[in-house]
Amino acid sequence: MQCKKALEEAEGNMDKAIIILRKKGSDIASKKSDRLLGSGRIASYVHGNGTVGSLVELWSETDFVSKNDEFYALAYDIAMQVAATNPSYLKMDDVTEEEKKRALEVFEKEVVGKPEDMKEKILKGKLDSYLADKILLEQSFIKDGNMKIKDLIESAIQKFGEKIEVGRFARFSVLEK
Amino acid sequence: MQCKKALEEAEGNMDKAIIILRKKGSDIASKKSDRLLGSGRIASYVHGNGTVGSLVELWSETDFVSKNDEFYALAYDIAMQVAATNPSYLKMDDVTEEEKKRALEVFEKEVVGKPEDMKEKILKGKLDSYLADKILLEQSFIKDGNMKIKDLIESAIQKFGEKIEVGRFARFSVLEK
Repeated sequence: MQCKKALEEAEGNMDKAIIILRKKGSDIASKKSDRLLGSGRIASYVHGNGTVGSLVELWSETDFVSKNDEFYALAYDIAMQVAATNPSYLKMDDVTEEEKKRALEVFEKEVVGKPEDMKEKILKGKLDSYLADKILLEQSFIKDGNMKIKDLIESAIQKFGEKIEVGRFARFSVLEK
Repeated sequence: MQCKKALEEAEGNMDKAIIILRKKGSDIASKKSDRLLGSGRIASYVHGNGTVGSLVELWSETDFVSKNDEFYALAYDIAMQVAATNPSYLKMDDVTEEEKKRALEVFEKEVVGKPEDMKEKILKGKLDSYLADKILLEQSFIKDGNMKIKDLIESAIQKFGEKIEVGRFARFSVLEK
């Protein structure tokens, strides 16, 4: 019994440590958010058969970071992600109200008959998951499904100690606008 | 005297031959204009220092042409052109009336005092030259100043015997929207 308690306490401490570490990471990220993005790098990616291509602009604060090979590799990974997944938006805030309304209209038909008190929750879940697929920063990283693109960028922020942001992206697929 | 006449006649025939050849080329091009663009290729170009990048979609009628190395080289040349010259439009028709009006307002100040009957001609010349720099198809090719991009494409049309068109292009320059 005492052993179980000690174990629980240890696990509790571990959880707290993880929470503190996570918070520290996001503190670093948010402290960096008012710094100036003064440099960056363009990466492009074209699929082997040449029918899909993408262009990504990744920002950093200084040339020291933007000229680093690992920073370029990050930009290239994001370009590959864009080519593979065809996101419509960069971040949640970019989603138009019209798009949200259109999606909700579809999902509302799917929850007909569900109990009233659950409808809203289900709708929110469906909408969030639908939008996450369309938003680059919210997408799962194609090379590591446990990570979202925003996690990938946050870990780069911690590694380089500089604010890093995706500026713009573009994607062309032959004859498909 | 007879010699001079003969020479003039020969030169005249040469001019006619060139005109006929040119016309034949543009007949081929226009005959192809109602055919369907069913294939294409994406090319990208990023400047060595990674601060400027472009993406170009080039259309053809068939995979046979779009998978040809020379076709890809053409797409790549156009991507390089876009990265180097930053065109705002693909073709003359894409220029907005607002842009034309804004440019004319500037040029009108430059022709103040010129004779009335010349003003219109000078204005048209200034506007055409200003717009040509901003329109990809009207630009001089950076690798051969004697050729416009539209000539480059027309010669590819004649070479491949298929309709070829630039579909879309994009260009990012770091921190410069």
